[in-house]
Amino acid sequence: MKKQIAALIGSIIFLAGNAWASSGHWTYSGHEGPENWGKLSADYEMCGKGKNQSPINITGATAAELQPISFSYKSSGLDVVNNGHTIKESYDAGSSIEIDGHTYNLLQVHWHTPSENVIDGKSFPMEGHFVHGDAEGNLAVIGVMYTTGSKNEAISAIWENMPAKASATKKDANISVNAMDMLPANKGYYRFNGSLTTPPCSEGVRWMVMKDPVEVSTEQVELFHSKFHGDTNRPVQALNARPVLK
Amino acid sequence: MKKQIAALIGSIIFLAGNAWASSGHWTYSGHEGPENWGKLSADYEMCGKGKNQSPINITGATAAELQPISFSYKSSGLDVVNNGHTIKESYDAGSSIEIDGHTYNLLQVHWHTPSENVIDGKSFPMEGHFVHGDAEGNLAVIGVMYTTGSKNEAISAIWENMPAKASATKKDANISVNAMDMLPANKGYYRFNGSLTTPPCSEGVRWMVMKDPVEVSTEQVELFHSKFHGDTNRPVQALNARPVLK
Repeated sequence: MKKQIAALIGSIIFLAGNAWASSGHWTYSGHEGPENWGKLSADYEMCGKGKNQSPINITGATAAELQPISFSYKSSGLDVVNNGHTIKESYDAGSSIEIDGHTYNLLQVHWHTPSENVIDGKSFPMEGHFVHGDAEGNLAVIGVMYTTGSKNEAISAIWENMPAKASATKKDANISVNAMDMLPANKGYYRFNGSLTTPPCSEGVRWMVMKDPVEVSTEQVELFHSKFHGDTNRPVQALNARPVLK
Repeated sequence: MKKQIAALIGSIIFLAGNAWASSGHWTYSGHEGPENWGKLSADYEMCGKGKNQSPINITGATAAELQPISFSYKSSGLDVVNNGHTIKESYDAGSSIEIDGHTYNLLQVHWHTPSENVIDGKSFPMEGHFVHGDAEGNLAVIGVMYTTGSKNEAISAIWENMPAKASATKKDANISVNAMDMLPANKGYYRFNGSLTTPPCSEGVRWMVMKDPVEVSTEQVELFHSKFHGDTNRPVQALNARPVLK
């Protein structure tokens, strides 16, 4: 019994420490940065102890007969938020992908600078994440890499309406964005199993990263970067036992 | 502050409940059975909330260029324990596999009746698990399915020395067992990413299940089954976002 009481007191001290730190606030650097996400809240523990975390270095991929992704994307009204971590376009209902006989609806598109996933160790100046969910709440994310070059017209409406301040939103049903135009012409992709790249870092996310990048202007990357006063990428995580398919 | 105190009291009640249940004892049926493993101890939580758990139904596999497993198995002295959950042969040091340029040492072989993994929904009367670990402690498990037929000579020394009681061990360096003889002739396999199939259900385990089964006599299956007074298989877990390769 003494042992149980001692364990209980230990747990109280541990939880008290946890309770004080569990505001849920997180950042990309400093004390609340990626190295400490797992300790910031009990809800974020997978960030620290998960064995199937994203992003990853996409390398040593196994050649496989991957099914093509069937895209049914329509245009959407503008609905862009600066949530303090990223610029996110919430997508109108009615756009989806089908893969291996399973349908996932497009929920939102957001970006990171520089890229979160890297390919054969190579980082890109920006990465877009097309977040989809199925009827059971399972997530599938398509990643698109950007290289600097011409101005990217497909994201320009979002970029021109990017709110400067955190929590600010800009909505306009008359301004149209089309996720289909944001994809590379060649839809070949890498597949792996991972997680959300931000707290709570939940696992069970189906990742598909396009092999081909698309172009974006240096000014567009810099505009995004300046909104967050720095990088918005989680470092790559251990692959552990996961296969990567190409 | 009131809120934090309330949360803390809630946590104490939760932990107290947990402390009383955390003997670590688990079973294959009843209150301490697979459905409740995740609640039996804080150490077992992945059993309940992991998204990459084993065993699975191996189905809808993606054709892939899987590298052959290079086996370097030697014979080992007999060192068999009935640990209350399975019969386990601890393998002498010096046997290993190499896969994708990575070496894993063979640590132990143990069995389950009926099989834990199933192939296209088909269960087998028994499954052997060849557990390997690399220098960093990462695990790789090779699964072998058994169909009933002729007596399996490769496991007969272990079967003849199977301790009847839990915690009992039989060691004899003069009795030789050879894991190489326990594998099917064709070494083609399915690959996926999973977990331990028993508490604490730790993830990050590389699974390779042989496509071809080997034979075992009905008497051998029944002898194993009788030691544990019933089945010793965890039910199949959700595949979630994981690809299965063939």
